[in-house]
Amino acid sequence: MKEYWSSRIRQLTPYTPGEQPKVQNLIKLNTNENPYPPSPKVTEAITAELGQSLRRYPDPEGSTLRAALARRYGVREGQVFLGNGSDEVLAFAFQAFFGPGDTILFPDITYSFYPVYAALFGIQCCTVPLNEDFTVPVEQLLGQHCGIVLANPNAPTGIELPQGELVRILEANPDVVVIVDEAYVDFGGTSALPLIDRYPNLLVVQTMSKSRSLAGLRVGFAFGNENLIQAVNCVKNSMNSYTLDRLAIVGAAAAVEDEAYFADRCAAVVNTRAWVTERLEGLGFTVLPSKANFLFASHEAVPARALFAGLREAGILVRYFDAPRTDQFLRITVGTDEEMATLCRELERLVQS
Amino acid sequence: MKEYWSSRIRQLTPYTPGEQPKVQNLIKLNTNENPYPPSPKVTEAITAELGQSLRRYPDPEGSTLRAALARRYGVREGQVFLGNGSDEVLAFAFQAFFGPGDTILFPDITYSFYPVYAALFGIQCCTVPLNEDFTVPVEQLLGQHCGIVLANPNAPTGIELPQGELVRILEANPDVVVIVDEAYVDFGGTSALPLIDRYPNLLVVQTMSKSRSLAGLRVGFAFGNENLIQAVNCVKNSMNSYTLDRLAIVGAAAAVEDEAYFADRCAAVVNTRAWVTERLEGLGFTVLPSKANFLFASHEAVPARALFAGLREAGILVRYFDAPRTDQFLRITVGTDEEMATLCRELERLVQS
Repeated sequence: MKEYWSSRIRQLTPYTPGEQPKVQNLIKLNTNENPYPPSPKVTEAITAELGQSLRRYPDPEGSTLRAALARRYGVREGQVFLGNGSDEVLAFAFQAFFGPGDTILFPDITYSFYPVYAALFGIQCCTVPLNEDFTVPVEQLLGQHCGIVLANPNAPTGIELPQGELVRILEANPDVVVIVDEAYVDFGGTSALPLIDRYPNLLVVQTMSKSRSLAGLRVGFAFGNENLIQAVNCVKNSMNSYTLDRLAIVGAAAAVEDEAYFADRCAAVVNTRAWVTERLEGLGFTVLPSKANFLFASHEAVPARALFAGLREAGILVRYFDAPRTDQFLRITVGTDEEMATLCRELERLVQS
Repeated sequence: MKEYWSSRIRQLTPYTPGEQPKVQNLIKLNTNENPYPPSPKVTEAITAELGQSLRRYPDPEGSTLRAALARRYGVREGQVFLGNGSDEVLAFAFQAFFGPGDTILFPDITYSFYPVYAALFGIQCCTVPLNEDFTVPVEQLLGQHCGIVLANPNAPTGIELPQGELVRILEANPDVVVIVDEAYVDFGGTSALPLIDRYPNLLVVQTMSKSRSLAGLRVGFAFGNENLIQAVNCVKNSMNSYTLDRLAIVGAAAAVEDEAYFADRCAAVVNTRAWVTERLEGLGFTVLPSKANFLFASHEAVPARALFAGLREAGILVRYFDAPRTDQFLRITVGTDEEMATLCRELERLVQS
C-alpha cells in the first residue's frame, strides 16, 4: 500500500543482513563475526559504568573513545569520527560527500549496502565490473570525477587492493572523496590510514565488529583529515547528537586499549584461515586469496547452492549470494579451529556424495 | 573551507545539544535527564548479557524489546519501531514521510531539532507562531496539506495540547502524516497512542531517556499503524540494520517491565514539579503550566540571561534559549527535592540582589 510513504522511500529496497538465527547450537559462519569473545577488559569497563550514570546523556563527542583511538593509531582526535557501527559511519559519509545528482563509482561485486545508501540519498551509482580474477580494474577508476567507494579487503571476495594501486586512485581523483571501507583490514591487510595526511580526499572507515569481537556493541569509526571529519560530524549532529551510548563508549575504549588481546585473536583467525584454505583446496575448491576473516570459495563440481543447503541441514550456516558471478561461491566466516574442522568434514562429505 | 562537502551539507547548521559539563558537583538541570537512576533490573539484565554474546550482532529487529513494549502498551509488535534515541526515530520518520520538495509545519517555538532534520533532508519548513500564551494555534494547522510535527507536551514550554485538539488536527489532515513527539508525556500528559488504530496518519514517538532514566543508553521508539512503521523500518534498514546494541535491547526491555519502579519515579518528579512551581511563583516568576519534567519560567523583573549566569556561578546549570519570545525564560529540569531546594534558594538570592 505504501500510503504516506515519501516518493523516494517507496522505491527503496533495503539491505538484507545475514540471518541471525534464533535456533541454538548452529555453527554460525554467515556474518563474519569473530569466533572469540571480546577482551575481558570490555566487560570490566562496562560493569563499572552501569547504574546511576545511565540516567545521563553520553558525551556526544565520545571523547574517551576518540582519545583511545587517536593514541592507538597515532592520529589527532580531530581526525577521528565515531558512529553506531561502520554501517552508520558509511551512511553519514555518503551524505557528507555526495548529494542528489552526484555519481559514485564502486565495483560490481562489493558490499551490497553501498547501492542502498545511494538510493536512499538520491545519489547515482555506477558500477565497475571486477576483473575475471575478482581484482579491481584500477584503470577504470582513474580521473572519473565521481566519488569512489572501495571495500579493502573487498567483500565478499576477501581480496586486497595493493596500497600502490590505491595511491594511484587517490592521486588520479583529487577532486572527489575516496572512501575506503576497511572493515576487514585487521586480518593481515594494510591500512590506508597512514595516507590521510597526504591525501585530503581519503576517508578510511573501520569497525569494532570484526577484529575486536564487538558486533553486538555497534561501534564503527573513520579516519580522515579534519575537514572531512567535520563534514561527517555535521551530518551526524543533524541526525542524532548521541549515536554512541555510554556503555559502547567505555567498552570500545577498553577493547582498543587491550592491544595484546587484539593482536593475539587476529593472529589466531589468520592461522585458522591458512589451514582451512589449504584443506578446501584439497577438496577441489577454488579459494580466492583472502586477507579478511572469511573465505570466498567455489567448488569445481558441486553447485554452491547445494553446498549451502547441505551445510544448513548439517547445522552450519554460511552465506550464499544468489547473483551473477557470485552464485557459484560460498562466503564462509573463519570460526574457531574446532568449528572449521567440522565445516571441512561436512564439506568433504557433501562433495563426495 | 568545506572542500569536498556535498552542497546541502555545506549549508547545514547542526543541532546544539545542552552542555554535558566535565566539571563534577554541578547541579545539572539543563538537559531534562531524570534525577533518579534507572531500575536496578536494567543493571541486572545488562550484566547478564555481557561477555561472549557481544561478539555476535544484535537482533536487527530488537524483538525482545518490541515484544516488551507491545505488551506494556497494548499494541501489536508490528506497530512498534525502535531507534537509537527518539532523535534517530524522528530523523528516520522525517525521511520516511517527507521528501525534498515537501513542506512540513510546526510551531515556531518547539524542539529545535525539527528544522535541522528538514534542512538535512531537503524538506521545506513552515512555522506557525504559538499563541500569546504559548498554546498551539490549532486553526492554523487544519487542512494545510503539509506534514505536521508536534511535540506534546511541547518543549521548551511544557504545555500540553489537549487530546481533543489533536484529534481535530488528525481529522483535518487525513492526507499527511502527523508526528507527535511525546518525549515528555509520562510526567502527567495524555498519550495519543490509543488513537493509532483510528488514524492511519498518526505516528507517536517516545523515548527511554527521560521517564525511564536511560538517556545514556540511547533508546527511542514509535507507535503507528503497520504501514507507517514499515516505512520507518525501510529507512532504517537502508541506513543501518543494527541501530540498537545488545545491551540497549535487554536494558530497555528490563526498564519497560519494571512498571512499579517507573510509576513511582514519574510520580516523584510530578510531586517535585508541583511544589517548585508554587515556590517560583512566590518569587515573582511566571511559570507555564508544565506536563513535562521541566519548568519554563520567566521573572517579572530580573532578565533570564542574568539569572542563567548567576545560577551557573552558583554551580547550577539550567538551559537558556537566546531567541525571540524565549529569551526571557529559563528552562529548568525537575531534579531531586534537594537539588530543587538549592535551586530555589539561589534564585531567591539572585532575585533579591
